[in-house]
Amino acid sequence: ADVEAGKKKSAVCAACHGQNGIAQIPGYPNLAGQNAAYLVSALTAYKNKQRMGGQAVVMQGQAAGLSDEDMANLAAYYASLPADGGK
Amino acid sequence: ADVEAGKKKSAVCAACHGQNGIAQIPGYPNLAGQNAAYLVSALTAYKNKQRMGGQAVVMQGQAAGLSDEDMANLAAYYASLPADGGK
Repeated sequence: ADVEAGKKKSAVCAACHGQNGIAQIPGYPNLAGQNAAYLVSALTAYKNKQRMGGQAVVMQGQAAGLSDEDMANLAAYYASLPADGGK
Repeated sequence: ADVEAGKKKSAVCAACHGQNGIAQIPGYPNLAGQNAAYLVSALTAYKNKQRMGGQAVVMQGQAAGLSDEDMANLAAYYASLPADGGK
């Protein structure tokens, strides 16, 4: 996976999940330091509309346009960020 | 929410999500330092079988027996743990 490509793709994610992967909005998950395999699994489930409830429709929409490669790159990028937000 | 009650309830969670909330198994999310509102939202969605795909059936089963109070306590506990696993 290509961390730099993931970083470029992550601009839209940052609006809710934070520039450093720490969500500024309660109810949205932090992504920084999350394990990459889980992130791919979650994105895939959203894309497949297998996740409902909460804000899932937002993520269904976001994931709809992501290829498997995009997901792998985004997951690698967020996994690479320090889990504490770099404080 | 009661962090101590959440900690007691978390013993079964630790098998997959780690004693310190850092999953030892790829594909399972880290929970340490995750925001509590998101954790409650995710647990509720699993309980309501609104999350499928990946290992969701495992979490559907785990969440089935949790009350709203249990979820709030577990979420508070995991949110209280250092996101980097305490390293």
